[in-house]
Amino acid sequence: MPSPFTLHKKSSTCPARTGEVKTAHGTVQTPVFMPVGTQATVKGVTPENLLDLGAQIILGNTYHLYIRPGHELIRDFGGLHGFMNWQKPILTDSGGFQIFSLRELAKITEKGATFKSHLDGSTLFLSPESAVEVQEALGSDIMMCLDTCIPYPATRAEVQEGTDLTARWAKRCRESQTNSEQLLFGIIQGGMYADMRAKAVEQITSIGFDGYALGGLSVGEPKEMMYDLTAETAALLPENYAKYVMGVGTPENLVECVYRGIDMFDCVMPTRNARNGMLFTSKGRLVIKNARYYNDPKPVDENCRCYTCQNYSRAYLRHLYMSREIMAAQLNSIHNLHYFVNLMADMRQAITEDRFEAFRKDFYDMREQPL
Amino acid sequence: MPSPFTLHKKSSTCPARTGEVKTAHGTVQTPVFMPVGTQATVKGVTPENLLDLGAQIILGNTYHLYIRPGHELIRDFGGLHGFMNWQKPILTDSGGFQIFSLRELAKITEKGATFKSHLDGSTLFLSPESAVEVQEALGSDIMMCLDTCIPYPATRAEVQEGTDLTARWAKRCRESQTNSEQLLFGIIQGGMYADMRAKAVEQITSIGFDGYALGGLSVGEPKEMMYDLTAETAALLPENYAKYVMGVGTPENLVECVYRGIDMFDCVMPTRNARNGMLFTSKGRLVIKNARYYNDPKPVDENCRCYTCQNYSRAYLRHLYMSREIMAAQLNSIHNLHYFVNLMADMRQAITEDRFEAFRKDFYDMREQPL
Repeated sequence: MPSPFTLHKKSSTCPARTGEVKTAHGTVQTPVFMPVGTQATVKGVTPENLLDLGAQIILGNTYHLYIRPGHELIRDFGGLHGFMNWQKPILTDSGGFQIFSLRELAKITEKGATFKSHLDGSTLFLSPESAVEVQEALGSDIMMCLDTCIPYPATRAEVQEGTDLTARWAKRCRESQTNSEQLLFGIIQGGMYADMRAKAVEQITSIGFDGYALGGLSVGEPKEMMYDLTAETAALLPENYAKYVMGVGTPENLVECVYRGIDMFDCVMPTRNARNGMLFTSKGRLVIKNARYYNDPKPVDENCRCYTCQNYSRAYLRHLYMSREIMAAQLNSIHNLHYFVNLMADMRQAITEDRFEAFRKDFYDMREQPL
Repeated sequence: MPSPFTLHKKSSTCPARTGEVKTAHGTVQTPVFMPVGTQATVKGVTPENLLDLGAQIILGNTYHLYIRPGHELIRDFGGLHGFMNWQKPILTDSGGFQIFSLRELAKITEKGATFKSHLDGSTLFLSPESAVEVQEALGSDIMMCLDTCIPYPATRAEVQEGTDLTARWAKRCRESQTNSEQLLFGIIQGGMYADMRAKAVEQITSIGFDGYALGGLSVGEPKEMMYDLTAETAALLPENYAKYVMGVGTPENLVECVYRGIDMFDCVMPTRNARNGMLFTSKGRLVIKNARYYNDPKPVDENCRCYTCQNYSRAYLRHLYMSREIMAAQLNSIHNLHYFVNLMADMRQAITEDRFEAFRKDFYDMREQPL
């Protein structure tokens, strides 16, 4: 089976690269940021907002959709695409990370994960096979293998056990797949041990997937450790496949991981922070409730071309936030998502023009300037 | 000064009529429903949503904007139009109704109303003159006189006192107006006494305003009493001026008041009920959380052309509501506002074609059908 990823351009000075991933609902230009639509909606924005701000692909959460409204219902509505009115590509995670987050309430065995619903406490079960079955019902363009996310810190023995189990589960995921229209990505665990990450790469790539993700990062480890493991693991993965760091991260994280050869990202940060009144700009973070913005006629970011910045002042956004208006979440989410999506577009262009290192320097220099 | 209202068509069998009100930001076709944008945003919808669903004019609340963010700030941002990015007409109320709602915390004297902010308890004051001054700062196309809303029930003496004070305040409002680009509407009080309403019509029309509103209705009185007073008062008002019933109401109220000769309406019901999951349809009200909608592929209203009904199922809207997603408020608000705005458009067309009584019968017949 050929790789759905096509490499376009490599930086001459670092592992940064551009490319594209071909899916059943269209082609995604990489590096790419995927807005997170946990419960079949990207919080606060419409599908039209997403198209308008340049989103190419969104992420849905298998765990959440499995427990509400249920994957069978979503299948009956033409999958997530039909249910939520989004016709571009969708990636679904496997539920592994949410089970990790709820691990006090979960029991992991060879067979799979037994856990309790955060909604009503009912006992649920996900196996590698059922995680694929659920994602096939959701109809996502890119499915993820069920993995066991390993806490940080963890002993070598714990990491070994989780990594090996993830590999055995990955094989069962691959074997249980029935729909070849949907891509299936493998997940590299290995904790914070470079040698175990390397072994995981061998295990997972020898099964063979349509793309590869780095899981179990950004779980509390020091930033430099995350960057080093990302660089080392990305370098071991086959060049002609997409490389995805799950759940990462800040704008700085995105720049640093692209610099180290990563193609795909997702994170709730742009929408979650938007709802909390924290706005991303080319000059750093802006906390909209700050009194200094009371009568500030400027847009959030004078360099931004998003709907919010084209039409509204900081003073208005502050008023909406202080007044707890729904529109605050809407306008802030549009801006933050545009910032993340546009940052990736700028990185793609910089790589295409082979000036990524200059871009990276400018990115940090801009952040020294006053808002 | 000529009336900004032009009468287009009168029903041959009832007082229903079509017309238009000319304002500084465009002409409004009547009968019209005005979505309420209390805090410089119509909750849950963007200005583009409002244009798309056919809103011609929106309402802003002087009381709320006066206490947050303040009218001086809004003036500096080009008035409400500039501040909130809405270029079509805006009507602002005077704050009288909110002071009435907070009357436990308010003291009314000849000079004006002293009241406490619901935000921080600080003592504030609005006089007829300052209510106009605030609305001039807000830059609304249609300003309302400061009135004293009279509770129901009330004695003749209480009603007399409130009605006469409203008339004296109306005169002071008219005299304090400095911007002739902004229309100023007078408010008819008179409680639930037809003779006092008639006297109020005399008092207010003898001062002379750009339009006339019926205030102090829908404050707890029986529905038939409200309809009778509306009919009697509307009949006494000059035909060549717009007639506005403030804060009314349900779809049935709108049909009944148009039937009795009313041209303008506002109410928070479409947006407030949307946030509570109550959707208006041609066949009556739909409570989206109802379990029967769990897997219902139909749109909210099969006769509706709104964005929500064109793109989303009842099942999806129920999922969003149960999941407490912001998108639930957005999509439900778009639908409900479209329902109200479109109901008015249908009434205008029925009046134009002189079949309003048939329209009214159909309206009720439809409501007997299953959802």
